Amino acid sequence: MNTIGTAFRLTLFGTSHGSCIGCVVDGCPPGLKIDEEMIQKEVDLRKPDVEVGTARMEEDRVQILSGVFNGITTGAPITLTLINKDVDSSKYEIFRKVPRPGHADYPALMKYGTFHDLRGGGQFSGRMTASIVAAGAVAKELLRQIDVRIAAYTQSIGKVTDNEEHSFDDILNERLRNSVRAADADLANSMIKEILNAKKDGDSVGGIVKCVVVGLPVGVGEPFFDTLEGELAKMIFAIPAVKGIEFGAGFRAATMRGSEHNDPYVIEKGRISTLSNNAGGVLGGLSIGTPLVFRVAFKPTASIKKEQRSINIETLEATTLKIEGRHDPCIVPRAVVVVEAATAIVLADLCMRGGFID
Amino acid sequence: MNTIGTAFRLTLFGTSHGSCIGCVVDGCPPGLKIDEEMIQKEVDLRKPDVEVGTARMEEDRVQILSGVFNGITTGAPITLTLINKDVDSSKYEIFRKVPRPGHADYPALMKYGTFHDLRGGGQFSGRMTASIVAAGAVAKELLRQIDVRIAAYTQSIGKVTDNEEHSFDDILNERLRNSVRAADADLANSMIKEILNAKKDGDSVGGIVKCVVVGLPVGVGEPFFDTLEGELAKMIFAIPAVKGIEFGAGFRAATMRGSEHNDPYVIEKGRISTLSNNAGGVLGGLSIGTPLVFRVAFKPTASIKKEQRSINIETLEATTLKIEGRHDPCIVPRAVVVVEAATAIVLADLCMRGGFID
Amino acid sequence: MNTIGTAFRLTLFGTSHGSCIGCVVDGCPPGLKIDEEMIQKEVDLRKPDVEVGTARMEEDRVQILSGVFNGITTGAPITLTLINKDVDSSKYEIFRKVPRPGHADYPALMKYGTFHDLRGGGQFSGRMTASIVAAGAVAKELLRQIDVRIAAYTQSIGKVTDNEEHSFDDILNERLRNSVRAADADLANSMIKEILNAKKDGDSVGGIVKCVVVGLPVGVGEPFFDTLEGELAKMIFAIPAVKGIEFGAGFRAATMRGSEHNDPYVIEKGRISTLSNNAGGVLGGLSIGTPLVFRVAFKPTASIKKEQRSINIETLEATTLKIEGRHDPCIVPRAVVVVEAATAIVLADLCMRGGFID
Amino acid sequence: MNTIGTAFRLTLFGTSHGSCIGCVVDGCPPGLKIDEEMIQKEVDLRKPDVEVGTARMEEDRVQILSGVFNGITTGAPITLTLINKDVDSSKYEIFRKVPRPGHADYPALMKYGTFHDLRGGGQFSGRMTASIVAAGAVAKELLRQIDVRIAAYTQSIGKVTDNEEHSFDDILNERLRNSVRAADADLANSMIKEILNAKKDGDSVGGIVKCVVVGLPVGVGEPFFDTLEGELAKMIFAIPAVKGIEFGAGFRAATMRGSEHNDPYVIEKGRISTLSNNAGGVLGGLSIGTPLVFRVAFKPTASIKKEQRSINIETLEATTLKIEGRHDPCIVPRAVVVVEAATAIVLADLCMRGGFID
Repeated sequence: MNTIGTAFRLTLFGTSHGSCIGCVVDGCPPGLKIDEEMIQKEVDLRKPDVEVGTARMEEDRVQILSGVFNGITTGAPITLTLINKDVDSSKYEIFRKVPRPGHADYPALMKYGTFHDLRGGGQFSGRMTASIVAAGAVAKELLRQIDVRIAAYTQSIGKVTDNEEHSFDDILNERLRNSVRAADADLANSMIKEILNAKKDGDSVGGIVKCVVVGLPVGVGEPFFDTLEGELAKMIFAIPAVKGIEFGAGFRAATMRGSEHNDPYVIEKGRISTLSNNAGGVLGGLSIGTPLVFRVAFKPTASIKKEQRSINIETLEATTLKIEGRHDPCIVPRAVVVVEAATAIVLADLCMRGGFID
Repeated sequence: MNTIGTAFRLTLFGTSHGSCIGCVVDGCPPGLKIDEEMIQKEVDLRKPDVEVGTARMEEDRVQILSGVFNGITTGAPITLTLINKDVDSSKYEIFRKVPRPGHADYPALMKYGTFHDLRGGGQFSGRMTASIVAAGAVAKELLRQIDVRIAAYTQSIGKVTDNEEHSFDDILNERLRNSVRAADADLANSMIKEILNAKKDGDSVGGIVKCVVVGLPVGVGEPFFDTLEGELAKMIFAIPAVKGIEFGAGFRAATMRGSEHNDPYVIEKGRISTLSNNAGGVLGGLSIGTPLVFRVAFKPTASIKKEQRSINIETLEATTLKIEGRHDPCIVPRAVVVVEAATAIVLADLCMRGGFID
Repeated sequence: MNTIGTAFRLTLFGTSHGSCIGCVVDGCPPGLKIDEEMIQKEVDLRKPDVEVGTARMEEDRVQILSGVFNGITTGAPITLTLINKDVDSSKYEIFRKVPRPGHADYPALMKYGTFHDLRGGGQFSGRMTASIVAAGAVAKELLRQIDVRIAAYTQSIGKVTDNEEHSFDDILNERLRNSVRAADADLANSMIKEILNAKKDGDSVGGIVKCVVVGLPVGVGEPFFDTLEGELAKMIFAIPAVKGIEFGAGFRAATMRGSEHNDPYVIEKGRISTLSNNAGGVLGGLSIGTPLVFRVAFKPTASIKKEQRSINIETLEATTLKIEGRHDPCIVPRAVVVVEAATAIVLADLCMRGGFID
Repeated sequence: MNTIGTAFRLTLFGTSHGSCIGCVVDGCPPGLKIDEEMIQKEVDLRKPDVEVGTARMEEDRVQILSGVFNGITTGAPITLTLINKDVDSSKYEIFRKVPRPGHADYPALMKYGTFHDLRGGGQFSGRMTASIVAAGAVAKELLRQIDVRIAAYTQSIGKVTDNEEHSFDDILNERLRNSVRAADADLANSMIKEILNAKKDGDSVGGIVKCVVVGLPVGVGEPFFDTLEGELAKMIFAIPAVKGIEFGAGFRAATMRGSEHNDPYVIEKGRISTLSNNAGGVLGGLSIGTPLVFRVAFKPTASIKKEQRSINIETLEATTLKIEGRHDPCIVPRAVVVVEAATAIVLADLCMRGGFID
C-alpha cells in the first residue's frame, strides 16, 4: 500500500496523469526549517536532462499545503504536492490490450481489472518518485540536525563502470556537475555516450546507483526484522526499475573468506572504526558508525521505440509493439536523487525510532 | 522489532542461550493440517552437517503449544517452540570487551548497553532462524493449498559457482541429496571441498542461495511500498549474514539494453507467459505468473579460529582475538531452508492480503 | 499519527487554517462507482445549520484528485480535498499565552512547543472531520455492495433525551428532516430549544449520538486485539469532543444480572437471531448479525462566549478569557454524519480484513 | 489479531485449554529490573477469590523465558508463560451445537468454522488476560521510572455503587484489603453480598471498574488517530465482557453546559493544573498532567447455571441450556488488575512513542 514508516511516515498520493501527485509526511518533529525552495532544489535534481533524458518538460513546482507555518514545521503532517502538466494520455489506451514488456501493465490489469488506470503508468509510474524526492528533502533536513549526510551517484551505465572509491565530498560535489550524476568527470562523458548510443538505437540502458551515508550514529536499526538493511531494501525496491540491492561487499562477499571479509576494529582519531568496510557500515542489522554503503541495480527503461513482441491479452494472439512518445533512454541519472531521498526517509524513521532524533 | 507481516504475521521470541526459542504465527486460517512431524522435517533441514557444519549437536525438537487442535489449525495463533540445549555461554564474556569483527557485538553493546545478552549472539543469533523455519513450514503448507511451491539451493560457495539453469523439480530433489544443498551433484563435491579447505585454515567462506517459486498467481504484491520484492527483501535481510538480494537478471540487468532485458510476452499452452525471465517473475512490484527467481548473497561466517585484529572497547587499545568454539565454516547450506521459509512467510502474507488465500 | 486502518486505510492531511484539508483513502478495491456529488452530499450533512450552528459559511467543495477514473475507482489511492476559505486566524494568537479551558491548546503547546499552529485548532480542529466524512462516503459505498447500512442520530442534547427505540428506516429518514439530526420530530424541537438556550447564554451544550448498523455479516472483527468494538472505539475517540462510547446495554449492563443481559438465541425467519440486543450486535469482539448499536457521548463545545478562568502560561498568573468568534453552541448535530463516516471506515477495513469484501 | 502496540508491543499466545498461555513483550528498553516474583504478585491479584470467585484452583506460575538476564532486561523481547493446569474440556463439546448466549461461541464458529477450538473459550477466554497482567507488570515497572502510577478499583457491582471520590493512595491500598477490590471497606461488603446473591440464584452480575493514573507528563498521545483515549479504548475493549468506556465526566458530559464542563486552569503549587477534572486528564487526545480517569463497564458473566434459551445451530431448532462447571458469578473484582495492566501497556507504548521514556 501507499504508506511506509513507523515514527517518520510517508503516504504517497496521486497518479501520473491525474491532476497532481503528492505526499503526506507524518511524524516530522516541530521546529524544523523547511521551505518550498529547498524542496524544489531537490526535486529539480530529478528533472530529465535535455541531452540524455526525455524531451518532456516536467516543470515540477512543489507546494507545501500544510504542516509548515512561517517556514517552520509545526508538528502537524506536512503535505506536499506537484501539479501534473503536459500529459498526453491518448497513447496509453493500446496497452490495455497489448501490455508493454517489462512494464507493470499486465500484472496490474490482472490485479485491478479493466478499472486500472494505466495512463502514464498510473500508480506504478516513475513519476511517483517525485513525491519521494520532495519528502526526502524534509528527511534530509531532519537528518542534518544530527549531522547525517547522504550522497548517491551513478556508478555505472550499461558497460561503463566507475570502479574508483570516491571521498564523500567528491561525490557530493561532482555528481552535480554532470548530467548523469557521475562522481568522475571523464566517466561521465563515457556514460553519456552509452546513453546516447542506446537512444539512437531506439533502445534503453540500465545502470547502478551507489549510495553513501556518513555521520550515522552506532545502533540505528530495530532487529530482528526492522533491520537497517531490510528497511532500506523495502523502500528502495519501491522505486520502479530496481532489480537488486547490496550492502558493502555485497555479492562479492559470497566469494570471500571470513578472514578477508571481516573488518578489523581499529582506533581512528580516538574513535572506534574499522580498517576496511566490507560490512558497508552495518552489522546485525545495526549501523556501526562507519559509512553506510550500498549499491542499487536499475534495469534499462522498459519503454523503448524498438519493435517488441507482445500479445493481445483479449484475443491471446501474438503481436508486436512499438512504443511511441517521450521516454528516458536511461532512468539512472534521475534515480540518483530518488535513492538519496528514499534513504533519507528510512533513516529519519529509524533514527527517530531509535531515539537518535527527539 | 520482532514482529513481521500484516495478514499472516510472525513474532519471534527467545534467545540463543535462553531456555528456548520460538514463534507465534498469527492469522493462519483455520482448517489447515499441521503436525509436529512436518514442521520437524523442515527444521531438520537446517541442522548442521557433521562434515561441513559445526560439531554442535543441535537436536531441535519442535513443539506446537497452541493454535492446532487434533492436527488442524483452529484460527487461533500458532505457537511453536524449540528448547535450547547444549549451550556453553562461558566463552562469550570476552566479547563484551573485545567485539568480534563482522559480528553484531559492537553495535549491540552500543545500542543496548551492558545489559545486552550476547551469549550465543543473543537475539542476533543465527539460531533465531530455526523459528523462522518452523513458521515457514506452516506457511508452505498454506501456500500448497493454492499450488505455490518454493525451492532454494546453494548456487555458489566461495569461488565454486553453479551457472546452470535447473528445472524446479531437479532443484527440489537434488538439494536434499547432498550436504551443501546444491542442485548439481558434481558441484556439490567441489563446494564441500571449498568449505573443508576454509575449515582446515580456521577460516570461513560465503556463498549464494538461489530461490525459485512456481505457481504464484498474477498480481501478488501491494504497491506502491509493499511490493513483492520489497517485502521479500526486508524479510531476507533479517537473516543473519545476508549482504545482497537481486531478482531475475538483477545486477546484470544494469549492463543490459531494454531490447535485451524486456521479456517478450508469448502464449504458452494457452496461457500468457514470457519468452525469457529477466524480470524474475515480478514487474511493478507484482508477480506476473512466471517463476519468481531471486538470489541472496551470504557473507562468510564471522566467527573464525584465525587470529583477528580487534580493540578493547573499554580501554580503546588494540588487541587480537581468536574465536574458540564450534562454528560453521560456511552458513550457506543451512541457510537454504531458511531462505525458503522466509519466502513462504512473506508469500503467505501477500497472498492473504491480495485475497489469493481466503 | 494521521493514518488509520490496515486493508482500507485513511490518512488525513491539512489543518484548519491552512490552504486545504483532505485525505488519502488507500486500499479501496477497483470498480466502485464514486463521484464528487455523492461525496459532497455527505459532506453537506456536516454543514452547520443557520439556526443551531455557527454563523460561518463553510462552503466545502469536495474534489477528487486521484484514484477515480471515469467515475469508477481504479485501485489506486483515492485523494479527496476541501479548500479552506473564510478563515480569520487573528483571534487565535492570544491562546498561545492563555489556553482555552477544555481545548487542546495547553497540551499541544507543551508537546509541539511554540511551533504548534493553533490557528483554528490546527491539526486538532473539528474541521479535520470533514475529511473523515468524505472518506466515509467512499466506505459507505463499499459497504453498500454487501448490504451493510449505517444510520446515526442525535439521541440527546443536554437534558433532552430520546428514549424510544426507532426502526432503522425511521432513523435514516427522520434525521434528515430536522436540523439537529434527531429521529423524533417533536424531540427535535426540544433539542433545538436546548441549544438556543445555551447559545443565548453565551454557553454550549453536549449530547449523545446513537449509531445503528444493519446488514453486517457474522464474524466481523479480528480478536484478540482488533475487536469490532476496539477498532470502532479507537476511531470514534479521534473525533474531537468524544468522552465515552458504549455498545448495546453499555454501562447499564454493569447493573444487570446475566440471566437478564444474555440475549437468548432464537430462529427468526429461518435465520439465527437474538430475542433482545443487549450485546449491541457484538460478542467476543465479533459481529453476530444483529444490529450493531452503540452510543457516543459528546461534551459541550469548549469555545464559549462566557467568561472563563484560565492562566497565562508564560507568567503563570491567573487571568480570564472570553472567546470571541463564531462557534457552534452544540457540535452534536454536525457530529452525527461524522460518527457514521468513522464507523463506515472501520467497518470497510474490518470487512476487507475478514474477507467479506474482496 | 494478537499483537498490539508500536514502540512497546505485546503479542499474546496460547489458548485457555492448550498447554500454556503467554506473551511476548517487545521493545522494552534494556536495564529494567524485572523478576518472576514481581510479575507473580500482579498475576496473583487476578486469582479468583474463594468466596466470590470460581472454585477452580488456578495456580498460575509465571515463567520468564527470555529477555531478562540476571534480573535485568536485555533489550531482547521478553517472553512470559503460564502453564495451563486443571482443565476439563469435556463440558464444552455441547456448545459447538448449542452456543451459549452472551458468549463468543456463535460468531467464532461462524468465523473459524468447525475447526474453532472452543474448549474453555479458546482464544476468546478471559484466561488470556492473565498474560496481559504479566505483561502489564513489566509496563508498570517501566512507567515507575518516570513516576507514573496506576490504580483501579471496583466502583460498582450490580446495584451497589461507590459514589465517593477517593485519593489515589486510598485506592491503591484499600482495594487490596477486600476480595472485590473496592476502595471502600463498607461498600466492599455490600458488593460481596450482591455477588453471593447472584451466585445463590445460579446467576451472575456486572459492574464498573474505575481507573486512575497519576504522574503522566503533559502531551502523552499521538493524534489525530492514536489518541490517549483511543489507544486505551482499543486495548480495554479487548478485555472480555467490556461494554463501555468513558473518560472524566464521560456520558454525564453530554448533559452539561460548557461553562460547567470546561475545567478552569489554575496554578497549584507553582504548576499548571485545573480546578475540576471533567476532562479526566485528557484534551485533544493528549494528557494534560491532571489525573487520567476513566471508567469501564463490565457485563455480567455470560456463563450462568440458570436455564437459558438457545438454539441448535445444526438443526436450527429451539432448545435450552444449563451451563455446568465452575464460573465466576462476577468477573469485575478479577478484572481490576487486568484494567490496570492493559492501561500500563498502552501508556508505556505512548510514553515511548512520545519520547517520555528513552
